[in-house]
Order: sequence, then structure tokens, then C-alpha cells
Amino acid sequence: MIDFSNFYQLIAQNRLQHWLRCLPEQLHQWQANNTHGDFPHWQRVVDKLPSVNSKFVELKNAVSIGKVGELDPSEIRKTESLLKQLSPWRKGPFDIHGVHIDTEWRSDWKWQRLLPHISSLENRFVLDVGCGSGYHMWRMLGEKAQFVVGIDPSSLFLAQFEAVRKFANNDQRVHLLPLGIEQLPKLRAFDTVFSMGVLYHRRSPIDHLYQLKAQLRTGGELILETLVVDGDVNDVLVPPDRYGKMRNVWFIPSAPALVSWLLKVGFIDVHIVDMDQTSIDEQRATDWMNFESLPDFLDPLDPSKTIEGHPAPLRTIIVAKNPD
Amino acid sequence: MIDFSNFYQLIAQNRLQHWLRCLPEQLHQWQANNTHGDFPHWQRVVDKLPSVNSKFVELKNAVSIGKVGELDPSEIRKTESLLKQLSPWRKGPFDIHGVHIDTEWRSDWKWQRLLPHISSLENRFVLDVGCGSGYHMWRMLGEKAQFVVGIDPSSLFLAQFEAVRKFANNDQRVHLLPLGIEQLPKLRAFDTVFSMGVLYHRRSPIDHLYQLKAQLRTGGELILETLVVDGDVNDVLVPPDRYGKMRNVWFIPSAPALVSWLLKVGFIDVHIVDMDQTSIDEQRATDWMNFESLPDFLDPLDPSKTIEGHPAPLRTIIVAKNPD
Amino acid sequence: MIDFSNFYQLIAQNRLQHWLRCLPEQLHQWQANNTHGDFPHWQRVVDKLPSVNSKFVELKNAVSIGKVGELDPSEIRKTESLLKQLSPWRKGPFDIHGVHIDTEWRSDWKWQRLLPHISSLENRFVLDVGCGSGYHMWRMLGEKAQFVVGIDPSSLFLAQFEAVRKFANNDQRVHLLPLGIEQLPKLRAFDTVFSMGVLYHRRSPIDHLYQLKAQLRTGGELILETLVVDGDVNDVLVPPDRYGKMRNVWFIPSAPALVSWLLKVGFIDVHIVDMDQTSIDEQRATDWMNFESLPDFLDPLDPSKTIEGHPAPLRTIIVAKNPD
Amino acid sequence: MIDFSNFYQLIAQNRLQHWLRCLPEQLHQWQANNTHGDFPHWQRVVDKLPSVNSKFVELKNAVSIGKVGELDPSEIRKTESLLKQLSPWRKGPFDIHGVHIDTEWRSDWKWQRLLPHISSLENRFVLDVGCGSGYHMWRMLGEKAQFVVGIDPSSLFLAQFEAVRKFANNDQRVHLLPLGIEQLPKLRAFDTVFSMGVLYHRRSPIDHLYQLKAQLRTGGELILETLVVDGDVNDVLVPPDRYGKMRNVWFIPSAPALVSWLLKVGFIDVHIVDMDQTSIDEQRATDWMNFESLPDFLDPLDPSKTIEGHPAPLRTIIVAKNPD
Repeated sequence: MIDFSNFYQLIAQNRLQHWLRCLPEQLHQWQANNTHGDFPHWQRVVDKLPSVNSKFVELKNAVSIGKVGELDPSEIRKTESLLKQLSPWRKGPFDIHGVHIDTEWRSDWKWQRLLPHISSLENRFVLDVGCGSGYHMWRMLGEKAQFVVGIDPSSLFLAQFEAVRKFANNDQRVHLLPLGIEQLPKLRAFDTVFSMGVLYHRRSPIDHLYQLKAQLRTGGELILETLVVDGDVNDVLVPPDRYGKMRNVWFIPSAPALVSWLLKVGFIDVHIVDMDQTSIDEQRATDWMNFESLPDFLDPLDPSKTIEGHPAPLRTIIVAKNPD
Repeated sequence: MIDFSNFYQLIAQNRLQHWLRCLPEQLHQWQANNTHGDFPHWQRVVDKLPSVNSKFVELKNAVSIGKVGELDPSEIRKTESLLKQLSPWRKGPFDIHGVHIDTEWRSDWKWQRLLPHISSLENRFVLDVGCGSGYHMWRMLGEKAQFVVGIDPSSLFLAQFEAVRKFANNDQRVHLLPLGIEQLPKLRAFDTVFSMGVLYHRRSPIDHLYQLKAQLRTGGELILETLVVDGDVNDVLVPPDRYGKMRNVWFIPSAPALVSWLLKVGFIDVHIVDMDQTSIDEQRATDWMNFESLPDFLDPLDPSKTIEGHPAPLRTIIVAKNPD
Repeated sequence: MIDFSNFYQLIAQNRLQHWLRCLPEQLHQWQANNTHGDFPHWQRVVDKLPSVNSKFVELKNAVSIGKVGELDPSEIRKTESLLKQLSPWRKGPFDIHGVHIDTEWRSDWKWQRLLPHISSLENRFVLDVGCGSGYHMWRMLGEKAQFVVGIDPSSLFLAQFEAVRKFANNDQRVHLLPLGIEQLPKLRAFDTVFSMGVLYHRRSPIDHLYQLKAQLRTGGELILETLVVDGDVNDVLVPPDRYGKMRNVWFIPSAPALVSWLLKVGFIDVHIVDMDQTSIDEQRATDWMNFESLPDFLDPLDPSKTIEGHPAPLRTIIVAKNPD
Repeated sequence: MIDFSNFYQLIAQNRLQHWLRCLPEQLHQWQANNTHGDFPHWQRVVDKLPSVNSKFVELKNAVSIGKVGELDPSEIRKTESLLKQLSPWRKGPFDIHGVHIDTEWRSDWKWQRLLPHISSLENRFVLDVGCGSGYHMWRMLGEKAQFVVGIDPSSLFLAQFEAVRKFANNDQRVHLLPLGIEQLPKLRAFDTVFSMGVLYHRRSPIDHLYQLKAQLRTGGELILETLVVDGDVNDVLVPPDRYGKMRNVWFIPSAPALVSWLLKVGFIDVHIVDMDQTSIDEQRATDWMNFESLPDFLDPLDPSKTIEGHPAPLRTIIVAKNPD
């Protein structure tokens, strides 16, 4: 069984200690609900991965672990085969001892776009809401963050994260907890909070912004990435049914509307730092994610539209500050 | 002290019996929080009102109770003076033994506009969310509803309602509970649910629609009245600060957007039955509500705008059906 | 399904109204746990019993319902057969249209012994903790109690009670709730509380006495019946294993010890009104309870001892008053 | 403010990890209830004590810390004065850099009596229920226990404990938590559990025994010390009012009765290892506890009786094993 004792030990002594008031019970419930089914299988896959301490962990420019010779060819083949069993891999890419995990997303491109615009992560406590496999958490460490916590309720992502961490010498500066944002108390403790690709999945975007704000210390920084539509401060798309074949899409505001919402809930220094039309080079099916992807979600005759006729995915990155 | 024993007795035997699983504890908490302060004072005002059984209770065309001679002039003067102590009166008007409570709103005009478009209330269980003083609840009885429940967290409105009910022979077909919509369990029991003037005060309009839906029986009818803006399905105003001097205004969608939201959460047969620019004849200060009102909320140079520059209040009434 | 709506309706208007704060949720849980299994079967047995309004309901000197001619012979045979399906019957006896339910216990004898010593039950609210089939509750009505509530967690006893009540014209002055004493809030509302045959089954007799006290109004009366041993104020038998083949027997104090305990928890006017060696005429197997009974629990060579060598059952009745 | 972060950090990695599911919230509530009043004052007293690392910490034969010369005379006077402010001191004695804390109890004598009869504490996890100032916890460390946890709800005892621990180089093998036994979940984790001087204060001695059992691992050992009376297996004193001027005394069984109770709740290998009439040399007023003590609680004319006429304090020590 996965256990979270290292995490508890660490936060017992740092500024997240008050999280102990609810977290162990929540994770106990999660464990009780995951003693059967997929997760134990994935956990066994992780356990079978070779244990190798690597001196080569590159996190600054990519997530790349290991060097020729640290694993022998048969171990590498086994590694590749085991990691494939944890498919689909969505956020990445990862290089693990020469195994290239070619994920659905080029998450490194998103990181390139946002990094110049955010406060230095050096020595910071960082929360990544909806962290997926944890790709960006490793890049945060590459930027010298002190302590990185990701939350994502999917147990597959937890297994993928633990697999990567096993190769990264079980790094204890970074942790993934299988929780949804609504399970977090008001921690008011993080220097930086990321919410990327989450807001449009929330029934109540305003409550989501309040929840994110409640995780930040005074003066802390929010990096919010989400789908937007073109338009002015009053434009908001609420897709009647699916969006790009995704169920569970609620509010896709214009960027000016989103800025206005952030101000309304009390953020200051709100800046749009990036707008980007997602390309089919950035999101697509691969050997590691062989379901449908962006090319299948767009109108074949007019790639400026989704298959439902909505505007094709346009994403913004907004940086804002918590004054409270 | 007000007590809710009649209500408990009635629902113990009707289709709302399951509400007993949480309601008495909630109202006990409300009572514990209201043993001091304004409500006991208002309760004493109600207690001082004359007890008179009137044979003349007109609810079909107005809310008008009593006839010349049932109360003597000194009792009438006392009645007027006591009712004034329950000011401000917002929803009405009421006629009580010749005392004309000229409320801020001509709520009867709204009733006129919606009545032709809704299913007959005869023999129905009706819920009025955000019922205020309860004006419309009396009109629902006038349409032969079987059992009418209003909820509104303001204790002043409870006092106003109980004052009127005292003159209406303590009618037990109609009840006001001092609760917010978020305190209701999924009752799935009402034939008709009204939500008028509430949605734009909710942080999460989608959750509000789900909560309303959860109160309806299969096939039940929702009457939703709220502020809207002109525009197409993607137009939604979220005022950055106040709207018409009101704090706590969140989403003001266009009528087409609102229709789309209703469909998205699962309502069917969704119809816009009324659109109305609120006039300063319908909402204004009176002797019974001598704070600011609509004329003060509009731009003096351009009454098509609020004082903040937003579109002046435009209200829609939408009727929809719960298929589940 | 059995439902408790009549009970809720009645207490909504009487001095037990505050019980609504927790009771409906508790009974909902009970119902959710009893939708399958024995109770639905027993409920069907009750439903099949003939519906007959009888003018002859004798509760003063016995529990005897019906008169020759109210039911025809085939209905009587059916009644007997159905009631047998609700065996084992422990507390009684009952006479139902000529069907004599010869129960394990002559509970009428116990009633005889205690009745001269208790305050008149006329117009009283009475609670019977551990009421079993409800036999004594009927006798309480026979003494003109106003409202009688019994609690006993066994669902068989609920079925037996409902069967008898069906013949007693569904009398609404008496109710059995499938609850344990530990589920009761501090009602402080009953004029008289009976606890007969319960105390020795409680791990904590002191807490039991406090719980009983908390159900009484100021000045209310407790009737406590339980097993005792001979001895002085410091004598208490805690059987190492079973007592009379019963598991789950904890404290059997002497009568003086029990009196002292009652005083210690705050009762006043504590009187031992009866001491009785249970005879094998009072408790024995019958056609309606064909498991082992008292004769089997006693040492065949020395009936002054149980089969384990403990003193044979000696029972006391104590009456006490709640001053608080 | 005292905080429990070290304790959380330690148990996150040991066999008590599951305690994190409720403990931090409980201690948070305790802290919230103790932000004003006595405890903050006592905490400041502890803070003012000199910080000195001593190489001389004797725990095997006494609790004696420090050696001549480690503190200068003025610091010693200050230490004595501060420690006096934490009076009354009940369990001890302690020697702290020459300051002799002459406590009400010679708890070392009790330790002498029990030590020969218990399993070696070496490498054990030990729980001390009702630990008071923590005297015996230090002696447990002196016997090489691995990890010692004491619980006692009194905040004065917590301050006394922290004062001693400050001189003992803030030893992290021993911890006092301000909790009552009823707040503990079923930890099933300790090798040895002590309950000394607690049972007679519990309304339900049987539940107390179950609670103690639930803290032990399979095969773990209970050391139970409590007041007893002379007599056979059926003798139990429940004082009608006070016992030795103490309120809140419930069950004082005979030693054979207590053995029987332990067997009944499922302990095995139950042995009475000591019986001792408490002498007025062992419990008496001192400069560090100048309220009444044992000499005042006894009948001046007959010291074999308490002032109420009960048998004078007789104490037993029983050792038992948890088979489950």
C-alpha cells in the first residue's frame, strides 16, 4: 500500500502542519476506497520498476532522469513495458533512462510560455491543483521550489507520479495527494498556487477562485490557466452539451471576463500573460495515449471550431496576487 | 417564541414527511440564534396585533383582509402603527382592515405577468424560494394551491408574514421557514417551485438551478424570475462591484444564456414567458419603505443605466419542467 | 413499510416535540437497515391479520381484545396461525378474539406486584424502556395513561406490538419505537419511566440510571425492575461468564446497593417496593415460546441456583423520584 | 504556544501513525480552549526556566537531573521559584539541579513495588493513562522504553511535565498529551499500558477496561493500579457521597472482583502482584503541595477508616495480558 507517512512527517514540522487536522482522515478514506480495483494493480506495476539511484536528474530544462549505463538493456525494456501499463499518459514528456514517454500533451511548451511571467519559485511552497501526472511539479523543483504539493483525484495519475518519483530517487520535496480542490481546508499557506486546466470543469468558477485564494498566503501568487473564448468582459460560453467531446465543461469566459471575476473575488495585480490557440502539435494521440485527442475534437472541415461548432480551444494564462 | 409545531404536524402526514429528518434541528438552531436581538422584538409586535377572525380574506385578485366594522377605529390605528414597526416592507401591497401597506414593490404586477403562463396551482404543493414577506404565497393560495411553503432567511420577513397570517385567521395552508435554499435537502416533492429575485444573488447559478430542480417532483414546474441583460447565448454580466447599489450580485445572464443553462442542468420545456424593464412605478420608496429604491439606483441622466453604468434592471420569467 | 408519521404528528403538538430534532433521522436509518431480512416478512404477517374493529378492548385487568362473533372461526384459525409466526412471544399473555397467546412470562403477575406501589398513571406521559412486545404498555393504558412510548431495539417485538395494536383498533395513545436507550436525547419530559429487565444487561449501570433520569420531568417517577442478589450495600455480582445461560449480563447488585446507586446519581424518595424470587410458573416455555426457559436455567439438583451456580433469579422493584 | 509538531512528526513514521486521523483536530480544540486562562501563564513560567543541556539525567533509580556547577546559584534560586509557581505538585519526587521537588506522593515507592512484576519495558511503546506530572513516564524511560506517551486532561500537569522535560534536554522519547482516555481511538498499538489511580474515577469501570484493552497490541500487557476494598469476588464499594473527601469516586471493587472483571472483558494471565495500605508517609502535604492530603482524609480517631467511615485507602496492582 502507498502510505503518506513521509508527507505527514514533513508537514508536521513546516507551515502546513494545520493540514494534519483533516488530511490523514481524508486519505484514510481514499485508501479504504482503493484497496481493490485498479490502484492496487498500478501500485504493483510501480513496485516492479527497477530501483536505481540515478545521479542524473534534469528538471530545469526537461524532466529527464538517468544516463546510459545506469540500467542494462533488459531492465530498460522492462521499464518501458511497465510504464506503458500505466497508460494513458497525458502530461509530459518524460525521459526515464532512455525511455521517452511521449505524452498526449507537450506540457513543456506550456511551461515555456508561463515561466517568464511568474515570480521566481525559489524557496517557495507551491500547490498545483489538478496536477495530473505531476509533470509541472518536477519543473517547479527545477526552478528551486522548496516544497511542491500536487492534488488530483485520479488514482492513475498518482501511480504515474510515484513511478517517476521512484526513478527520481524518491524525492521528498514533491508530493501528489489524491484529493479534489473541494477537499482542501483554507490553508492560507502557499506562496504560489497553480490551477491549470481545471476552472472550466467546475460548476462554480467563482467558488473555485475563492478556494484557490484560500490556499495562498498574503501576497501569494496565483497562476490560472484555463480555456477562454474571444470576446469582451460580458462574453461567457457555457456549452449546452459537450465541448471538444468533453463532458463536464461549464464556464468558458473571455479573458477580460475572467480578469474581472478575479478582481471581484479580491485578487489584485491581475495580468493576462499568455493567450494561445492550442495546436495539434501540442495536444495529440501518441503511443502512450492512444485514445482520441485534439485532432479528433476539431471540426475536420474547419479546425477553428470544435466538432460541436464551438470555438476551438484557446487558452489563457493569468497571474494574480492575493492581498489578504 | 414562534414555534413550528403546526408545520411539523402537517408534514408528518403529507408528502414532505422526510423533511423531518433535518428540519427540526435546523429550526432549533435558528431559534437558538434568535432568542435575543430583533426577532423577539418583532415577535412582540405581532403578538400585540388584534386577534380578529375575519370572514373577508380576498386572495384571488389582491391580498385584502377584513371589512369595515370588524375592527373599531382605535384598533385600526393601533394596527397601522404596529405594522409600521415592521418596516421596511418590500413585497406587497397588503390591505389589512383598511390599512394599506404600500410596499416598495408592486408584486401584484409581477403576479399578473406570470399567472397566465404557469400551470394551474390548484391542489398543488408549492415552494417559494426567497419569498420575502410572503406576498406571492397568498396569491398562490388565491389560485387554490393545497400547501404553500416559503423560505427566506430574513427574520423580518418572517415577522411580516406572521403578522399578515394572524389577520388571515392563522391560515395553516401557508408557512414561511427562515431558511436559505442551501439548507434544503433534496425533497423531490413540490409540484411547483418559484425562485424570484434570487439567482443573481447566488455565487453559483448552476448549483442554484440544481438545488431548485432537486425540490421538484418528476414533472414538476419551475418558475424562475431573475435579472437578465440583453444579448445572445454567450452574454453574461458579472458586475465588477455593485449593481444598482446592491452588493452581492453575481451572474446576470442574457435570457438565451439562462435558457441554455436550464437545459444543461436537465430541465425540459423551457420557455421565456416574460421580459420586463422594471419601471419606477413598480419599484419605489413609499411610506412603508423609506430607504432608497429604484429611482435612486438609476443614472439620473440616463435611466436606461444603473448608477454604475450597467444596463437598468431587465427581468425575465422563465417556466421549465423537471423530467426526472 | 411501517412508518412513524402518526407518532411524528402527535409529538409535533405535545411536550415531546423536541424529540423531532433527532428521531426521524434515527428511524430513517433503522428503516434503511431493515428493508431486507426478517422485519419485512413479519410486517407482511401483520398485514395479513384480519382488520376488525372491536368494541371489546379490556386493558385494566388483562390484555384481552374481541368477543365471540366478531371474527368467524376461519378468521380465528388464520389469526392464530399468523400470530404463531411471530414467535417467540416472551411478554404477555394476550387474548385476541379467543386466541390465547401464552407467553414465556406471566407479565401480568409482575404488573400486579408493582401497581399498588406506583403513582397513578392517569393522564401521564409514560416511557417503557426495554418494553419487549409491549404488554405492560397496554396495562399502562388500562390505568388511563395519556401517552405511552416504549422503546426496544428488537424488530420482532415491534412486529408483535403492531399485531396487537391492529386488533386494538390501531390505538394511537401507545407507540413502540425500535431504539435503544442510548439513542435517546435528554428528553426531560416523561411523568413516569419504567425500566424493567434492562439494567443487568448494561455494561454501565450508573450511566443507565443517568439516562433514565434524563428522560423524566422534574418530580417524575422511575420504576426500576432488575435482578438483584441477597446482601448488603457492598454486594454486587458480576457473573464471570453467563448467568442463567444468558450472555451479556453485567451488574447484579444487592437491593441496598441499587438503592445507594440511585441516591448517588441524584434520585430521591427511593423505595424498594417488591422482592420476588422468580418462579417456574412465572417464566417457562409454552406453545408460543418453545425455546429453553427458567426451568432449564436452574440447577436441576438445587433450584436455588442457576446452572452456573449463581443465586437463582431474584428480582426487585424500586420506585424513585427525580428532583431535578 | 505549546505545539505538538514533534509528536506528529514522530508518529507519522511509527506504529501510531493512524492516530493522526483524529489527534491533531482534538489537540487543536484543546489549544483553542486554552488560549486564555491558566495554561498560558504556566507556559510562560516554563519558558522562563533556564535552558541548560545537562549531561546528568538519572532515570533508572530516581528522576534526578543536573550536577553541581551546571547552573549558578542565582539560576537555581530562580528555577526553584518558578517551579513552585507550578504547584501543587502531586506525583514525584524530582531533583532538578539540586532543587528537590518534594511532591505529595512518593511515586517512586509505587514504582518499586510494581517494577519486579511487569515485563521488561525495554524497546517498548508504553501508554500511561492518567499520568499526572509524568513522573512514572521518566522511570519507564529509565527502564529503556522506546516511546512513552502519557495522557492526562489537566493542563497543570502538562506544564509540570514540560518543565521537567526542558531540563531533560527536551527528550523526544516521552510525550504528554492533554486528553482523557475516552478521547482515544482504538489504537491497538502499545506493548504496555499503565492505568494507575484512574479506575475508581470512572462511572463505568467495565468500559474503562475495554478502553485500556483497545490500546494494547495482541499480547500487550496492562498494569492496573486502583483502590480496592477487602472482600470476596462479590464485594464492591460504591461510596454514597465522597471517599476520602474526593468527589467523583464510583466503583471500588475487591481485588478478586477486579480480577474477575478483567477476565470477563477478555484479559488473560491476570495476576494480583501487590496490595498496599497507603501510608501517611507515602501520601502527605509538603512544601510543594500544601493542600490537604491523606492524613486529613482519614478518621483522626481510627486511621483504618476514611473520614466518611469507609475503609482507608488500600491499593492493588494487577498485571494482565491482552490475547486479542
